[in-house]
Amino acid sequence: MGSMSNKKSLAKKRRRRSIIAFEMIRLDRMSTEPLHQQLYRQIRDELRSGSFIDGASRLPSSRALAADLGISRLTVNLAFSKLHAEGYLRSKAKSGTFVAYPLPESFLSADKFARRTAGRSGPEAHPATVSRVRISDRVRAIPDQRVGKQFDLGATGAGAGVSLVPSIPAVDEFPTGVWERLRAQVLAKKGAHLLRYASNRGDSDLRNALAAYLCDFRAARCHPEQIVIVGGMQQAMLISATALLNPGEPAWIEDPCYQQTRRVLTLADARIIPKPLDDQGIMIARAPKEPFPKLIYVTPSHQFPLGVTMSFQRRTALLDFARAHNTFVFEDDYDAEFRFTGPPLPSLQGIDHSGRVIYAGTMSKILCPSLRLGYIVAPEPLVDSFIKIRSAMDQHSSPIDQATLARFITEGFFLSHVKRMRKLYSERRDFFIEQFNKLLGDRFTLQVPEAGLNIVAWLKQEEDFQMIRRITLDIGVRPSALSFFCIEAKLKPAFVFGFAAWTPAQIRESLVKLASALKTRPT
Amino acid sequence: MGSMSNKKSLAKKRRRRSIIAFEMIRLDRMSTEPLHQQLYRQIRDELRSGSFIDGASRLPSSRALAADLGISRLTVNLAFSKLHAEGYLRSKAKSGTFVAYPLPESFLSADKFARRTAGRSGPEAHPATVSRVRISDRVRAIPDQRVGKQFDLGATGAGAGVSLVPSIPAVDEFPTGVWERLRAQVLAKKGAHLLRYASNRGDSDLRNALAAYLCDFRAARCHPEQIVIVGGMQQAMLISATALLNPGEPAWIEDPCYQQTRRVLTLADARIIPKPLDDQGIMIARAPKEPFPKLIYVTPSHQFPLGVTMSFQRRTALLDFARAHNTFVFEDDYDAEFRFTGPPLPSLQGIDHSGRVIYAGTMSKILCPSLRLGYIVAPEPLVDSFIKIRSAMDQHSSPIDQATLARFITEGFFLSHVKRMRKLYSERRDFFIEQFNKLLGDRFTLQVPEAGLNIVAWLKQEEDFQMIRRITLDIGVRPSALSFFCIEAKLKPAFVFGFAAWTPAQIRESLVKLASALKTRPT
Repeated sequence: MGSMSNKKSLAKKRRRRSIIAFEMIRLDRMSTEPLHQQLYRQIRDELRSGSFIDGASRLPSSRALAADLGISRLTVNLAFSKLHAEGYLRSKAKSGTFVAYPLPESFLSADKFARRTAGRSGPEAHPATVSRVRISDRVRAIPDQRVGKQFDLGATGAGAGVSLVPSIPAVDEFPTGVWERLRAQVLAKKGAHLLRYASNRGDSDLRNALAAYLCDFRAARCHPEQIVIVGGMQQAMLISATALLNPGEPAWIEDPCYQQTRRVLTLADARIIPKPLDDQGIMIARAPKEPFPKLIYVTPSHQFPLGVTMSFQRRTALLDFARAHNTFVFEDDYDAEFRFTGPPLPSLQGIDHSGRVIYAGTMSKILCPSLRLGYIVAPEPLVDSFIKIRSAMDQHSSPIDQATLARFITEGFFLSHVKRMRKLYSERRDFFIEQFNKLLGDRFTLQVPEAGLNIVAWLKQEEDFQMIRRITLDIGVRPSALSFFCIEAKLKPAFVFGFAAWTPAQIRESLVKLASALKTRPT
Repeated sequence: MGSMSNKKSLAKKRRRRSIIAFEMIRLDRMSTEPLHQQLYRQIRDELRSGSFIDGASRLPSSRALAADLGISRLTVNLAFSKLHAEGYLRSKAKSGTFVAYPLPESFLSADKFARRTAGRSGPEAHPATVSRVRISDRVRAIPDQRVGKQFDLGATGAGAGVSLVPSIPAVDEFPTGVWERLRAQVLAKKGAHLLRYASNRGDSDLRNALAAYLCDFRAARCHPEQIVIVGGMQQAMLISATALLNPGEPAWIEDPCYQQTRRVLTLADARIIPKPLDDQGIMIARAPKEPFPKLIYVTPSHQFPLGVTMSFQRRTALLDFARAHNTFVFEDDYDAEFRFTGPPLPSLQGIDHSGRVIYAGTMSKILCPSLRLGYIVAPEPLVDSFIKIRSAMDQHSSPIDQATLARFITEGFFLSHVKRMRKLYSERRDFFIEQFNKLLGDRFTLQVPEAGLNIVAWLKQEEDFQMIRRITLDIGVRPSALSFFCIEAKLKPAFVFGFAAWTPAQIRESLVKLASALKTRPT
């Protein structure tokens, strides 16, 4: 109402009743678009351009416009009536046709929007739907991430009643206070330097600290210039696959496998070839006509999800294969730090003498997933390409987080955290095993892991699988079905439980809940 | 020396002089690998496996081994001499051939490494070089990033003597104190929740805050569910291109163009088709047999680097083209906030009624590059695919940074920072223009920008270009040559100066330096 009376007074004051000339209209008689549609569209666009927002601009009569353009009056009337219907025009008795005010679009001035109260969320979605949206083949081929939803559930914590999800570390044990103190120190020391664009390769203090750690504790053989800081294990894989594979070229992965590996390699447009596992690790046999892979993804320290440690024989055979057939091995060393029996095994990278191993680690399990920091130890001839990809992909990781992590490592907090967590996880694993065998030993056989955050429980009665699956979904105890990680592998039914992120009380509560839900069902 | 005497005493004590049986050796007479090479390799692997590290294990005589394996003694001797040469074996007078101690590999025990002093960086690079490393076509096709090196220089700040680099915001004006206080608040409130895996779509508070801001100030039409938080503008482009293009499919970009656009689209395996600009923006003419693009990248608010604002006519023509030919428009709205004359123009997204515009923004220019946060406003049918890609690519951005940014926006710090910076940049722009014209007006004609952090200076004498280019490199005043951003476009020579990140004193100093370096040269 206010805008209408404003308009009226404006119109009265100025007495401007100009007739719009529409000089911009160009009709194409050869077009498949009907003339009235062309006319409608061009007038609408002209009105939208915002030249006539005072509401006093009159349109030429349909007769005059038709004569001007050399078209029939019917054509003009068709266009006008559509503009009327959509609110762009209004008629006034005895005065003719005017540009509507306000226009149906509310885009004309950002000023008008600025006057709205801040903090309001804009609910106007696009009304129109898009027809014929075609998503690329590579994206459609990415397997759905059922586990992703578990992550989101996991993010709400055990308090939300979802528990025993695999691969979740105990983030509430993370020393946030120490971390924030170190952050304040690096900010005080380096100031605005940490707010700028930074090195694509990564913070040099962090690369130095990681090189020392990896040489000392993972028996890696590397210098800091071989290290590229990345935003986690998935980015490490994506960068490696993008550097080494042309679209459609083959990559081998373990079967069963970490589900994100399959998703990342699909995103990178690789042709994924699953390879079975035996008790020594990935089996590197190749069918006679099978093409040689450009990349072989493995988890030698502690296979995910089965927990196999790759034997020394298999390691050297794998390296020989890589050297002989000009391929690279991606060593995902995601949780080697959490080995409970004996020292961690040396990395595959450390026994490679031909520069064929791309070693990658992540802070997601050791510290916390939200940090989004990981690293690649790259063979020297690949370093420049990896940095180039990172610079094109997303530049670099947070310089503040990198500098804080460097200090966290060099001041010894990293090692003491790993040590403390190894002890904690070892205790939780033992408690889990004890309780599980007591409460659920009639249904499952546990495969005791030497490392990591997860434990595989094999069903004693295969036919129980669907029933147990449903129950776990119902009661919020959320191990993953082993089959979720399988591509072609046909394994006996099992569930992969996470035990690391829950206290003994929570572990017991969850297992009791599962056991009593199962009690009501026949074995 | 210590290890030798240890070894001797050990050997003496145990008197263990076992002869290695080498039962594992399997020779393949059909193989193309010579028998002596097979033998060498298998013995080496067995020694590497670490079973014989006491140094007292004797090898069978070449005669005995040859007999055992049914091969000639020469073959055995060839293998042994290679193992000798490489340090795996040593001979002892009258005693035979023994396994060397220590072995040339130092990978045998992670324990040994753990004993080394922590904090030492491991300098042992891989000695071997990798032959025949083939980097993928897409990565080799990414143009080199000369500007990337400028970023690294820029990261060291004006203090390092490099100045007037384009696209660098004044990060020392960023309210770090406020930011860190808000960070502490969100950490106190949400605690461990912020350390877990988080939503692939992004923090919901942040998406709400951005939707409100974009509707109010950019005349966007969106709701929070359409927003996907990303790690900056390049990731926004990469996700969009990956979702919409199969490898080799065409994408249009402006020419000249933001150099990272070209690099990202090459990484995504797009076929890049540069389109010229006129004074209304990108020209959408298509050659008769040219395929229709799947994606059109534009900077409508303020073209980078030329500064053109896309006209309304061109905007509607572009949207009509997109609708008619089933393509999407990527609107990079990287610095629309810093418009100095009049209110910011409404976004292209806001006038699109067919869901054909992917709108993207970044915090890199508005706040600071190190934050690595940006956002996409996606047409609804694309949202799920974008989230799927993010989940496969690198999961999500830092939950703590996202939550802090949400609070920074909702508590009003964001708007007041933008306002303050707009004023500061406007003053710096005016000062730059005044000083530049006074000091360098004889060489250059400035093109005064209405927005942004950069300013284009056209050469009055085209033949001066190489000379000025060399001088800028020499003296550390680092505008980019306009030609750096061109693909096929042949523009008159010009330089793109950044003025935003330097104080008036620094601007004057740099321009004086440039002017006096040029004074010594003929005009």
